[in-house]
Amino acid sequence: MSIRIGILGYGNLGKGIEAAVLQNPDMELKAIFTRRDPASLKPASGNVPVYAADSAADHKDEIDVLIICGGSATDLPKQTPLYAKDFNVIDSFDTHAKIPEHFAAVDSAASENGHVAMISVGWDPGLFSLNRMMAGAILPDGKDYTFWGKGVSQGHSDAIRRIEGVKNGKQYTIPVPEALEAVRSGKNPELTTRQKHTRECFVVAEEGADLAKIESEIKNMPNYFADYDTTVHFISEEELQRDHSGIPHGGFVIRSGKTGLNKENQHIIEYSLKLDSNPEFTASVLAAYARAVYKMAKEGQKGCKTVFDVAPAYLSPLSGEQLRASLL
Amino acid sequence: MSIRIGILGYGNLGKGIEAAVLQNPDMELKAIFTRRDPASLKPASGNVPVYAADSAADHKDEIDVLIICGGSATDLPKQTPLYAKDFNVIDSFDTHAKIPEHFAAVDSAASENGHVAMISVGWDPGLFSLNRMMAGAILPDGKDYTFWGKGVSQGHSDAIRRIEGVKNGKQYTIPVPEALEAVRSGKNPELTTRQKHTRECFVVAEEGADLAKIESEIKNMPNYFADYDTTVHFISEEELQRDHSGIPHGGFVIRSGKTGLNKENQHIIEYSLKLDSNPEFTASVLAAYARAVYKMAKEGQKGCKTVFDVAPAYLSPLSGEQLRASLL
Repeated sequence: MSIRIGILGYGNLGKGIEAAVLQNPDMELKAIFTRRDPASLKPASGNVPVYAADSAADHKDEIDVLIICGGSATDLPKQTPLYAKDFNVIDSFDTHAKIPEHFAAVDSAASENGHVAMISVGWDPGLFSLNRMMAGAILPDGKDYTFWGKGVSQGHSDAIRRIEGVKNGKQYTIPVPEALEAVRSGKNPELTTRQKHTRECFVVAEEGADLAKIESEIKNMPNYFADYDTTVHFISEEELQRDHSGIPHGGFVIRSGKTGLNKENQHIIEYSLKLDSNPEFTASVLAAYARAVYKMAKEGQKGCKTVFDVAPAYLSPLSGEQLRASLL
Repeated sequence: MSIRIGILGYGNLGKGIEAAVLQNPDMELKAIFTRRDPASLKPASGNVPVYAADSAADHKDEIDVLIICGGSATDLPKQTPLYAKDFNVIDSFDTHAKIPEHFAAVDSAASENGHVAMISVGWDPGLFSLNRMMAGAILPDGKDYTFWGKGVSQGHSDAIRRIEGVKNGKQYTIPVPEALEAVRSGKNPELTTRQKHTRECFVVAEEGADLAKIESEIKNMPNYFADYDTTVHFISEEELQRDHSGIPHGGFVIRSGKTGLNKENQHIIEYSLKLDSNPEFTASVLAAYARAVYKMAKEGQKGCKTVFDVAPAYLSPLSGEQLRASLL
């Protein structure tokens, strides 16, 4: 029997889930729930029922795991606890500082209603967190580094587009190669924000706009750009569409640590991702963990879980026996 | 209260465990068990009791987890099932093909006696297995690559030393940089054994030995060298001791996979290790998983486990709350 998946929210992430489910023969996309007019939504993969988000509870018996694809700022803090009442759920909540609060709200809803709910699943938080945590447990005497990119930051792109005279724009976060090399060499450098990442902006200006002013506003924007070395390129809308329409991302989690009675030996653990499509990869991580949610719920587990709580075997369609024979 | 660790077997790995336990404030080394004369063994870290391996069962109430540091060829297949009767145990059994058999023997001993037993913990099998498995679950439409090195292969070094006229020798396994790059580029190349790794040998010959004959014997040795491009350097014993006395190792697990309705997006997941000391790093992995064994046993779990079965949070001394607040 297939794992019956529901998607709540049909943006880039929801579409990524749709594609990911098709790649997993043990899963089936049963329904898409949307806050838009369901009639207006045409699923890319064909004949999937589309329902209003408000009516989701009517379909709770048709869905094993509901994947909630809302935004972290305002959607997920409401949606995940709400839908955890009627469904086993999973989300990609990524506001790191608010995870404990989100966990508490989701845990209470899921526990009271006998469901499994996973939060903050994706690559950061998610796979990167797992690697930070495991590398730290293995090499307790060491130092962690996370680099992001090269990739598109949606938040920084939005910030550019809010500037007067800017028609469109896209921002790439880029790790500084020298910083990466210093970390890999085991030097355990202390790195400032500016030393770790640079920011590169591709901006389409409105006709007659003051380019120098736009560039200065970007480079001096507090929090977003002022602490970084930022490059601004003005290009045409055509060039932006042609060369910068993708949503690539990636990054590196590196731990450098010492062992030995006299700390004489150095070790480097590195985990990296190079992603053509940030939302599709995040969706693929969510799909694998949705399988884990399904298995945990079947076992009678309940409450809120994170990637730290899930035995890796739950992610795989293979049995323990198959995993040991083929992948250990 | 500390986790009370016992070490069975005081070779390179056992000594690594001793050093790793000292780095983990929640652990305490309670005893070392040896097949040698206990009086002849002087633990590097000082005043640790040393007992005969035969008498280990007399000390079962003093030990929470016994880390078995024997060899995979003949020691562990006997030792791990045997000691799983009296202890929670963990080993680094690394004969991939015999894991199912070893699992069955250990599972039956551990289950019958109410203990938790982990097998095949280290980096390969171990962390590399985990990364192969998880990357495969996340990107089902893709291809796996494992490269080893640069590092010392004990088996190949032993093979060299068995050749007539060879006094001493050390062999390094080295990944071919072009193969690594082809994999990272997402080309999903089909690679032969020869295309993936080269082998470099440093050989100390006996006086008057026929160097050409030794070199030819090495390069043509079936299984070990014949399928590889092998380089042989003759050096002095002094040079060997000075430049090649370490036991470095490492490697790369890379999965390249596609997502999207039309498989239009490519993703690369890469995990790599660069280790100054193979046994000390393996010991550090064992120590972290010994913590997991302790926690699982406390919860009343029993039977044989592998890295696939252990929720990552069990590796850490931090609570779930601390992990979520600081590392997610």
